[in-house]
Amino acid sequence: MPLTKTELARLRALRDKKHRENAGLFVIEGEKVVGELLAAGFPLLEVYATAAWLAGKGGAAKALSGVERGLRTRFKPVQKPCSTQVFEITAEEMARASHYPTPSSVLAVGNITRQSLSPGALTHGLTLALDGIQDPGNLGTLLRIADWFGIARVLLSPDCADLFSQKVINASMGSFARVAVHSLPLAEALAGLTRPILGCDLQGEDVHALGPLRDAVIVIGSEGRGLSPAVQAMVTQRVTIPRFGGAESLNAAVAAAIVCDNLRRTSRPAEVN
Amino acid sequence: MPLTKTELARLRALRDKKHRENAGLFVIEGEKVVGELLAAGFPLLEVYATAAWLAGKGGAAKALSGVERGLRTRFKPVQKPCSTQVFEITAEEMARASHYPTPSSVLAVGNITRQSLSPGALTHGLTLALDGIQDPGNLGTLLRIADWFGIARVLLSPDCADLFSQKVINASMGSFARVAVHSLPLAEALAGLTRPILGCDLQGEDVHALGPLRDAVIVIGSEGRGLSPAVQAMVTQRVTIPRFGGAESLNAAVAAAIVCDNLRRTSRPAEVN
Repeated sequence: MPLTKTELARLRALRDKKHRENAGLFVIEGEKVVGELLAAGFPLLEVYATAAWLAGKGGAAKALSGVERGLRTRFKPVQKPCSTQVFEITAEEMARASHYPTPSSVLAVGNITRQSLSPGALTHGLTLALDGIQDPGNLGTLLRIADWFGIARVLLSPDCADLFSQKVINASMGSFARVAVHSLPLAEALAGLTRPILGCDLQGEDVHALGPLRDAVIVIGSEGRGLSPAVQAMVTQRVTIPRFGGAESLNAAVAAAIVCDNLRRTSRPAEVN
Repeated sequence: MPLTKTELARLRALRDKKHRENAGLFVIEGEKVVGELLAAGFPLLEVYATAAWLAGKGGAAKALSGVERGLRTRFKPVQKPCSTQVFEITAEEMARASHYPTPSSVLAVGNITRQSLSPGALTHGLTLALDGIQDPGNLGTLLRIADWFGIARVLLSPDCADLFSQKVINASMGSFARVAVHSLPLAEALAGLTRPILGCDLQGEDVHALGPLRDAVIVIGSEGRGLSPAVQAMVTQRVTIPRFGGAESLNAAVAAAIVCDNLRRTSRPAEVN
């Protein structure tokens, strides 16, 4: 039984943020990203895949236990232990459901979930607060950096790129599934915090001279516009990455990574060191 | 006098690497990038611009001294002190010459120049050697990082992205004009070098424990394929960026930036410190 027009239209519509928000769902496509999310144990709701992907030896499909048996009846949803419904579809159906000119062999749907920030959460561990990072590739790269450095949580200002867009999830290389992310008005969230709030600019303290900071917030603005005034006003400590050449700036992700590396150098988490 | 078909075809052809190599010329487009190269004193051969760009107050056009007078006779090349020929063209001509769906107000042509590496050059200062960095955006970002950290030179393996492609030059944010770049077979260039050759992987020495290294080569491979075996064999010291979370890797530019920052921390150039 092929996908109905309504089902195809539903999948295609998820390319738009508005439709994602209305449905409370997002979609990802591609062997790599679906494999990354499955490997990270992300609870996908629906997986649409070609027979070739589902039969793949040693691939991501293995994470969907019981798939092979369940798929004898094509397009009968198979209830998985993790509640992932798996549908085998044809390459033609995939081409019609896909958001891309070159469809891949697997597409998956997940729930949009938003975690609220518990009171006092920012007083423990390192927080990366992203202010107006509108480029999806940069946002995904920043999630990956946060994941590498074991940052406890990432805060996104409302004008950041949509966390649930495919470009963000792809660029995060699976870190989307591992990093705790909260979207909220940044200045309000930072107001009254008694921990250091670090902002990166060209006139701050040398990042190499930073003392140990186990509990702190690092705010990163967009390269073009910098920090918004309300967030800038919350910064308690300005830090600067020493420059030895002619470039005017570093991009936001590179700057964030260097600050994180310097913080981790002086205050490694006890469990890692 | 409008641009002839031949002149338009010549400009458009420079989008292809093959044509660039045959002509020994490259092209860049856009207010931002042309402004960056002019600000860096890069010797552009030809500038094609709309009247609006040329009349721009305080903009990059100011770097082309004498332009305003010279342009009363439209399309008569104006010899500049730096030998930049400036042509005023219409928006329609720009649209036909442009490589982009949305043409900008200025387009410039420069000479492809290749610097040979003088014998013994690698024994002095820090060198960033890029092995198979095929993504133009990543290559441009790496040039910018090299520029920020005052890296003495960048070596590119022959299978890196073309240094003279617009995407590379744009992503470098002007650093293209400031960094000394040499394209050459990397393993041959590194053979016999008596200075440390650092390679970044997951089983090396903690980059935070690196001693002072004033003269060294940092080799960076592509994220997908890593270092080529011949270059890997030249590495004398493996370094690792400590990881505290779940991400499998960092991207090449982020890793390079962190290694550069750590090297600069322990061995700042005398003239800067």
